[in-house]
Amino acid sequence: MKKSSNISKNVIRRLPRYLRKLDELAKAGTERISSGELGKQMGLTPSQIRQDFSCFGEFGQQGYGYNVAGLRDEIAHILGMDRSYSVILIGAGRIGQSLIENFNFPRYGFRLLGAFEIRKELVGTEIAGITISDAETQPDFIREHNVDIAILSINRDHAQQVADELIACGIRSIWNFTDADIDPGESGCIIENIHFSYSLLALSYYLTEKD
Amino acid sequence: MKKSSNISKNVIRRLPRYLRKLDELAKAGTERISSGELGKQMGLTPSQIRQDFSCFGEFGQQGYGYNVAGLRDEIAHILGMDRSYSVILIGAGRIGQSLIENFNFPRYGFRLLGAFEIRKELVGTEIAGITISDAETQPDFIREHNVDIAILSINRDHAQQVADELIACGIRSIWNFTDADIDPGESGCIIENIHFSYSLLALSYYLTEKD
Repeated sequence: MKKSSNISKNVIRRLPRYLRKLDELAKAGTERISSGELGKQMGLTPSQIRQDFSCFGEFGQQGYGYNVAGLRDEIAHILGMDRSYSVILIGAGRIGQSLIENFNFPRYGFRLLGAFEIRKELVGTEIAGITISDAETQPDFIREHNVDIAILSINRDHAQQVADELIACGIRSIWNFTDADIDPGESGCIIENIHFSYSLLALSYYLTEKD
Repeated sequence: MKKSSNISKNVIRRLPRYLRKLDELAKAGTERISSGELGKQMGLTPSQIRQDFSCFGEFGQQGYGYNVAGLRDEIAHILGMDRSYSVILIGAGRIGQSLIENFNFPRYGFRLLGAFEIRKELVGTEIAGITISDAETQPDFIREHNVDIAILSINRDHAQQVADELIACGIRSIWNFTDADIDPGESGCIIENIHFSYSLLALSYYLTEKD
């Protein structure tokens, strides 16, 4: 498949939604779907859908529609789900524990290799098959296992310092739950933020607009 | 201020980022800022910034720039932060507990009134000044207190059913952490989703693109 490097951020952000919808369709036994029907189910226009997919090359066929399983696999490939990226969790507080317990890493092709915590009383406890390790062992672990992604779920006051340490160990991307802005410096480390406040404020905007 | 009802979703999603930056600037004692400098600090073009703010009317003055405190307050107003919306939490598991403990509701103008849980062993426990109540008392509480926003942090299998019950009690918006898609039906209830997987897959895309 052709892969353009100038795909807009909005298209990237829609890909996981397409993936979810196609998974549902496949599960329900749907083999093919038109852009019109897909759009209807997702609240998008057919032309929007055709335009989104055209960034990556041609998925569909005029008069036939899209092959659900094929399109799903292509999107999974584009999203890197077939790369088996390795993940570690830094900070096993409530959010961290919840991710270990509830987030389905294998479903999306990720391998959760370990979790690290600075509070000694949590070290050695086990959650969903993952034993919490001492944060002191983190750097060696990252180097030995060539870890791709670090989930940062620590206190926001230490976010930048710990991020700097992770990057120095070779971490290439950080999934940031700290609500602090992290500066990757010259490292090129990818920072993806979960900003809870941004989401609640968007909700609040729509509520206000309705009043 | 003029308020257009046709503001794009992208602009809405950027408003909380502007708010955060302006809060930082105000804290650092900055009184005014040009669109050029603001853009530089936020990774946006000056024309993008001018265009975003033009949706709501005129904030800045040619040759003067933006008044930081004034602009901050206008954005806070647009986001409904001066409306003192009431919030309850449905499901006091790890994610729910983490939100009670770590999310700064008052900072954004929200009032967290209570938390509800179906597991009896959690009922009566206290987290950061909030006592967990029995889920059975939820409907009466919502009606009595005219609650605006429900945070849904329960098991995804029950998401739609509980959402339906909340909507029947008069809940006008749901901040959805369940990773299930919720259908508000004809109610007009606003659903704002936190989809962790969408965020991690975007990160994975960028990592793959780099490889």
